[in-house]
Amino acid sequence: MAAATDHRLKDGLLTIQSEIDAAFDLLLPVPGDTRARLVEAMRYAAIGGGKRIRPLLLTATADLFGVDRHAAVQAGCAVEAIHVYSLIHDDLPCMDDDDMRHGKATVHRQFDEATAILAGDSLHALAFEILSDSKIYGDPFIRAELVSTLATASGMNGMAGGQMMDMAADDTSYDLPAVTRLQQLKTGALLAASVEMGAVLGKVAPEGRAGLHAYSRDIGLAFQIADDLLDHEGDEAKAGKALRKDDEQGKQTFVTLMGADGARDQARALVNQAIERLSPYGDDAALLIDLARFVVERDR
Amino acid sequence: MAAATDHRLKDGLLTIQSEIDAAFDLLLPVPGDTRARLVEAMRYAAIGGGKRIRPLLLTATADLFGVDRHAAVQAGCAVEAIHVYSLIHDDLPCMDDDDMRHGKATVHRQFDEATAILAGDSLHALAFEILSDSKIYGDPFIRAELVSTLATASGMNGMAGGQMMDMAADDTSYDLPAVTRLQQLKTGALLAASVEMGAVLGKVAPEGRAGLHAYSRDIGLAFQIADDLLDHEGDEAKAGKALRKDDEQGKQTFVTLMGADGARDQARALVNQAIERLSPYGDDAALLIDLARFVVERDR
Repeated sequence: MAAATDHRLKDGLLTIQSEIDAAFDLLLPVPGDTRARLVEAMRYAAIGGGKRIRPLLLTATADLFGVDRHAAVQAGCAVEAIHVYSLIHDDLPCMDDDDMRHGKATVHRQFDEATAILAGDSLHALAFEILSDSKIYGDPFIRAELVSTLATASGMNGMAGGQMMDMAADDTSYDLPAVTRLQQLKTGALLAASVEMGAVLGKVAPEGRAGLHAYSRDIGLAFQIADDLLDHEGDEAKAGKALRKDDEQGKQTFVTLMGADGARDQARALVNQAIERLSPYGDDAALLIDLARFVVERDR
Repeated sequence: MAAATDHRLKDGLLTIQSEIDAAFDLLLPVPGDTRARLVEAMRYAAIGGGKRIRPLLLTATADLFGVDRHAAVQAGCAVEAIHVYSLIHDDLPCMDDDDMRHGKATVHRQFDEATAILAGDSLHALAFEILSDSKIYGDPFIRAELVSTLATASGMNGMAGGQMMDMAADDTSYDLPAVTRLQQLKTGALLAASVEMGAVLGKVAPEGRAGLHAYSRDIGLAFQIADDLLDHEGDEAKAGKALRKDDEQGKQTFVTLMGADGARDQARALVNQAIERLSPYGDDAALLIDLARFVVERDR
């Protein structure tokens, strides 16, 4: 059983990774003018790195409702474009000042800061170019709903707002509800949007999305707790980036607030709860269930 | 006649300026957590500055087709949010390194670089939140078309691509076609999108937009030529920002490539041509005609 699970999840990840790489390759042709450096930087950041958890969440949800694979993968690219842009900007010297990401130099180290900012901005715009493309999504209602879901999850009431709260964490003593809120915005909003967009593609009415929404919130929080645990006790070589930064900066995390054991227990409880939410979908949700377990058991 | 024109344009600008300020004020409530600084920075950049030429282009075009004013102003806010985010990012030390904008400190000088990057990113997302809001635009086709038009104009094949070409101008000897292409992307794409979005709101079929599209391309180019002339011979106090930077950096501009007189003649010819494009709309296009003239005659 465990072997079958491992196999299914590994296949799912490998498949989506190659699909997303191929899609970005087509979406990002290098122009024959001085924008070439910009698009090279976008390609450097977007192709061949990352676990692609968000696209997998999106496509696995879309699969529950028999959505066309191409449409789902393109929407996965849009979510991933937002995720990648946020990593490029977060890594900048004035933000987290990171030199390594996915085991290679960060974009501003490989190129330069101006190119990194513009590559992030261009990936940000690309996400909405994809989702509003009538050649991919014939139904304008779906285009508009995809855009609305992703834009809301990305901005001041989502990911960017959470990153701002995180930047302020050095000077602020957050308690557990505040750290939970911060992480729901910074990481949770985009993970939840991924599931939501799969449901939008599946034409699931908003009232039918409650279980999936709860699943995505649970695994979003579990994901971040696992991230804090990894930062606290993980292996830098496997992670492909610098760790122990939270500890060095004396930042409040789920680990400092709950202890490593408490955090691990909480993450597992959330994952079990998330899996419970999927019971209406039976065996069809097997990949989403595997993914929930992977979120807390991963080593990078 | 000239006085009537002056009056009409002045009224149009004052009206849209107060409408856009009021709309941003409602769109950007300051939250009661550590995101407050982010939203304060967004408000600082978005409210009470700028000529609002893009929103005026959009609403004046929408007026040709009797579009609901609230819907047009909200779309104007979306275009302006993109314009403002691009100014925030372009002003950063690693880009143009500007200290002053609209007569006050740039966002990274008033706040800090990280906040400036996140405020820009959040305004970027806000634009697409607005355009995909079903409460503002009941017709999903219009929502999706507005998003598509603005996203395409903002990204690597529009504004951000043009900014990248501009960053490369220090090391590249651009000729006139290259500078024209650069400016069509950097400034022209968003001006053209403003007109296009007005036509989308007016439910004008793509084949009916050719004249308006040509108008917007002409004034986009004229606008940039005027900008180069202002940079070359303008008054810093009126401009509210540092001038003569292109000259200092030895960059190729319309002025260096055509001479100041040649550039002035070209801008005027483009404006006359732009006005000619509006002849099918008769007197209804009076404000768009005034705006075309203003583009080359402004002193800031």
